[in-house]
Amino acid sequence: MTETESPTGSTLTIGVVKETKPGERRVALVPKLIERLTRRGLKVVVEPGAGAGAQLADDVFTEAGATTGDAWSADIVLTVVPPSIADIERLKPGTVLIGFLAPLTNTDEVAAMKKAGITAFAVESIPRISRAQGMDALSSQANVAGYRAVLLAAQRLPKFFPMLTTAAGTVPPAKALVLGVGVAGLQALATAKRLGAQATGYDVRPEVAEQVRSVGAQWLDLGIEAAGEGGYARELTEEERARQQQRLTEAIGGFDVVITTALVPGRKAPTLVTAEAVRGMKAGSVIVDMAGETGGNCELTDPGKDIVAHDVTICSPLNLPAEMPVHASELYARNLTELLELIVDTDGKLAIDFSDEVVAGACVAGRDEEVN
Amino acid sequence: MTETESPTGSTLTIGVVKETKPGERRVALVPKLIERLTRRGLKVVVEPGAGAGAQLADDVFTEAGATTGDAWSADIVLTVVPPSIADIERLKPGTVLIGFLAPLTNTDEVAAMKKAGITAFAVESIPRISRAQGMDALSSQANVAGYRAVLLAAQRLPKFFPMLTTAAGTVPPAKALVLGVGVAGLQALATAKRLGAQATGYDVRPEVAEQVRSVGAQWLDLGIEAAGEGGYARELTEEERARQQQRLTEAIGGFDVVITTALVPGRKAPTLVTAEAVRGMKAGSVIVDMAGETGGNCELTDPGKDIVAHDVTICSPLNLPAEMPVHASELYARNLTELLELIVDTDGKLAIDFSDEVVAGACVAGRDEEVN
Repeated sequence: MTETESPTGSTLTIGVVKETKPGERRVALVPKLIERLTRRGLKVVVEPGAGAGAQLADDVFTEAGATTGDAWSADIVLTVVPPSIADIERLKPGTVLIGFLAPLTNTDEVAAMKKAGITAFAVESIPRISRAQGMDALSSQANVAGYRAVLLAAQRLPKFFPMLTTAAGTVPPAKALVLGVGVAGLQALATAKRLGAQATGYDVRPEVAEQVRSVGAQWLDLGIEAAGEGGYARELTEEERARQQQRLTEAIGGFDVVITTALVPGRKAPTLVTAEAVRGMKAGSVIVDMAGETGGNCELTDPGKDIVAHDVTICSPLNLPAEMPVHASELYARNLTELLELIVDTDGKLAIDFSDEVVAGACVAGRDEEVN
Repeated sequence: MTETESPTGSTLTIGVVKETKPGERRVALVPKLIERLTRRGLKVVVEPGAGAGAQLADDVFTEAGATTGDAWSADIVLTVVPPSIADIERLKPGTVLIGFLAPLTNTDEVAAMKKAGITAFAVESIPRISRAQGMDALSSQANVAGYRAVLLAAQRLPKFFPMLTTAAGTVPPAKALVLGVGVAGLQALATAKRLGAQATGYDVRPEVAEQVRSVGAQWLDLGIEAAGEGGYARELTEEERARQQQRLTEAIGGFDVVITTALVPGRKAPTLVTAEAVRGMKAGSVIVDMAGETGGNCELTDPGKDIVAHDVTICSPLNLPAEMPVHASELYARNLTELLELIVDTDGKLAIDFSDEVVAGACVAGRDEEVN
């Protein structure tokens, strides 16, 4: 256990920076959570304009008890997206940095944090255990992404999602398939179902079938299982993958909408929708590939773009949570606040306890220095 | 009753034209309805590419029994949007034209039809009686538009529509207000509700309150009533309108989403959402103004555009049904097929009976010539 006051011995400051990545509209803290921090004697400094993308003007933050100013020089800096090396160089030694830090892929950035003497907590690395659920930013943002993926699919589909009964006849509900049933996939299934589609889920982990059914969706059984650790699927063998692809390819032709969410942390996303599968779909069908950032689950995906191939629209949005910044920020801010409450004691002093598996698991830089 | 064969005495031809208005992706007839027409001995001629926008390739039409060719020279020509004067001049004398013809506003075009010897049936003018419900294209397309308006609002809103319960806390459902509860408004309410919003409807006709409640939405009672003829509201008096606006302005500030659908046929749309009301809305709120084509229900609407005013996004889509062309076309084609079956007898001969109130009501050109 290490108890540290801020360098000047005064109140610890929490910095809320303005995100520097283009298109990022989220902000790491929202006004309604500031009181939970100031109550502990913490001071919140918000970079001017930090909340603009999430419809939060500076004065809404200051009315809630924050000040505006240089958030990058705070004792604890909160970010949404992984900071660039230039961003990291703006931090003073000893800073505690908390945010999405992409530790598995952004290895140069993590090295820069270590070199700069930063103690960094990556929300991606928080162990997915019951006690840490409230800090699970991957889940909160995946919830947003899954919901938005369905809105995008519904918007692109030239058909109704719900069944419609009119005086001139009936149109059947759209058929939506969600591949990969984690938090995003489950929210996508629930949203598609809610909007009136006939929703079907598929995952290589058979244990999620019950969750799929719990939101009123059907389970697509392809007869291939690959349960893995930490809630992610293990990688399939080559033979399994070939069988999976063949059966999926056959099944996909029956759906109007396919939403793919299959991610393997730190690796290229698996291909689930082949070019052949796309060719087998009806004209006007829609694929939303949520794995575009790591190459995509569809063979024809062009990351970040909407394309039309074989009369099928293939969308690859790269940052769906940023499209719904008010609630995405609010949920994320709650996650960070819970984590903050774990590393700051009730007197507002840093109390980083590396014997706590959540704290230890989340820390991607600065632990060695603490231990030495 | 007039029985007419086509000029050559042979089979009557039904022409399905390629729409000429930019952005119009619908088509007036779909392959699955062709058999209902050919069974009567009618011949269907589809202009090449007519179905492309609705994902219907020419060969899908020909496989269903149509031929491709010059649809504009057919005996009966089906269109979606009101034809231009140039389009009308492509029709031969004696042609029967069926489609949206905007007879109340496109008076020059209707004059051109009369001059050209066209018998024209406007789907907008079909009496809204039980027997003609299957032909009610205004309703079928309004259903599409109401659904799409909610998708648009959900897409623009930086918040969830549904309530979300997460480990880190709960976000409340969005509050959506629909102004004007005709077919579009009711479908908007049903869709908003389905997607998880708290939906509220308002209309100057108090008798629709029950319909609003039937889709699970709440009724907003402002204490002003204006039931009118034909399912539309009568125009309010100036004093009533002032009171309505004041009370609405106060109410609107409590909603995240406002969808307006108030139309008065052949007239400018009434202003329901004033600039003051927009100013009173929370930052990030969304207005979808479905009355943009006749000036809009919101004072700040810029028809055809998405604008942001006072941190509120105001969308004014002008042709929502065209954004969902597969089902919009299918429903529309069913409406036209029912109308066709009313004016063509089972032997495939024209049998236009002006003593039928539906036929008489729908006819906007060509009746005088028939009577003489």
